[in-house]
Amino acid sequence: MSAVRAAGAGEELRELLLSRITDVPDYPKPGVMFKDITPLLADARAFTALTDAFVALCERYGATKVVGLEARGFILAAPVAVRAGVGFVPVRKAGKLPGATLAQSYELEYGSAEIEMHADALTAGDRVLVIDDVLATGGTAEASLKLIRRAGAEVAGVAVLMELGFLPGRDRLAPVLGDAPLEALITV
Amino acid sequence: MSAVRAAGAGEELRELLLSRITDVPDYPKPGVMFKDITPLLADARAFTALTDAFVALCERYGATKVVGLEARGFILAAPVAVRAGVGFVPVRKAGKLPGATLAQSYELEYGSAEIEMHADALTAGDRVLVIDDVLATGGTAEASLKLIRRAGAEVAGVAVLMELGFLPGRDRLAPVLGDAPLEALITV
Repeated sequence: MSAVRAAGAGEELRELLLSRITDVPDYPKPGVMFKDITPLLADARAFTALTDAFVALCERYGATKVVGLEARGFILAAPVAVRAGVGFVPVRKAGKLPGATLAQSYELEYGSAEIEMHADALTAGDRVLVIDDVLATGGTAEASLKLIRRAGAEVAGVAVLMELGFLPGRDRLAPVLGDAPLEALITV
Repeated sequence: MSAVRAAGAGEELRELLLSRITDVPDYPKPGVMFKDITPLLADARAFTALTDAFVALCERYGATKVVGLEARGFILAAPVAVRAGVGFVPVRKAGKLPGATLAQSYELEYGSAEIEMHADALTAGDRVLVIDDVLATGGTAEASLKLIRRAGAEVAGVAVLMELGFLPGRDRLAPVLGDAPLEALITV
């Protein structure tokens, strides 16, 4: 029932990735320590190593499509799609996709939000890897998994650059993941 | 004074790209024909061919960094950065970047908007290629060029998947581009 616990990245990759992620205190609100990945994206060697690690997960889990979650997930998932030779599917905030969509709401600390995927983006034979930068409370990841299943496709797994281990994202995803893996390259 | 006119993509690439872009009428508002690139992103062969065309422009113009414009520009620019082995720099809507930023406003049909780049994202030696999906009125592209110059870096050029030839984006960009090229793979 519980999601497969990720082995994480090798020590060398872990060190490289961690060295390119900076802490920004009190963003987006007081008391929150934001993990800024823009130094990693600006470093071609680190960004390539990250991409390769995700590509390896694509291959391990037989993904035929990758889903990127707006907006930072787009930046991480798109190079994976190109390098792995699989299609890229954007999951966007409500109202941003032009075609017919499937919508899925999810709960936030206060209130709720909604994400969408094009209704024809996936087919029954697809195995889909969801890629994002951070797993925090897991709301958007959980909603994206529901969208994938509603589209009739299989979930190949969820892969994130970093998991915030002090938040319950992993537990929240477990029932929706089923036997599919949740892979976090680093846990902070 | 005027920007270099793009040679555009070769006929075979042009055909491939055009075949994967669909028209969505009345989006985001009545009377507008939206060009939907999600079928192109879902097709690994087409997305890779597009990426390779942008990588060739990176090399031709000696880019050391690529800037992606939120949000669809992220999807196109990130694979180019990884494949060309240069850094990726996001330009985001106001309030989305955690660190100290440079902000640049630009005019819309009604009112104005603002984009931001991290103040330390570029250095004086950088040559920057701006990548986006569509050149329409040119407002965000123009603002991004101003940000690049304010950061002390050089503009290597602007590269877009498609230029809407019936809108004045190219004319608007010309004075800010100076001798730097504007490359549109296709013009519609």
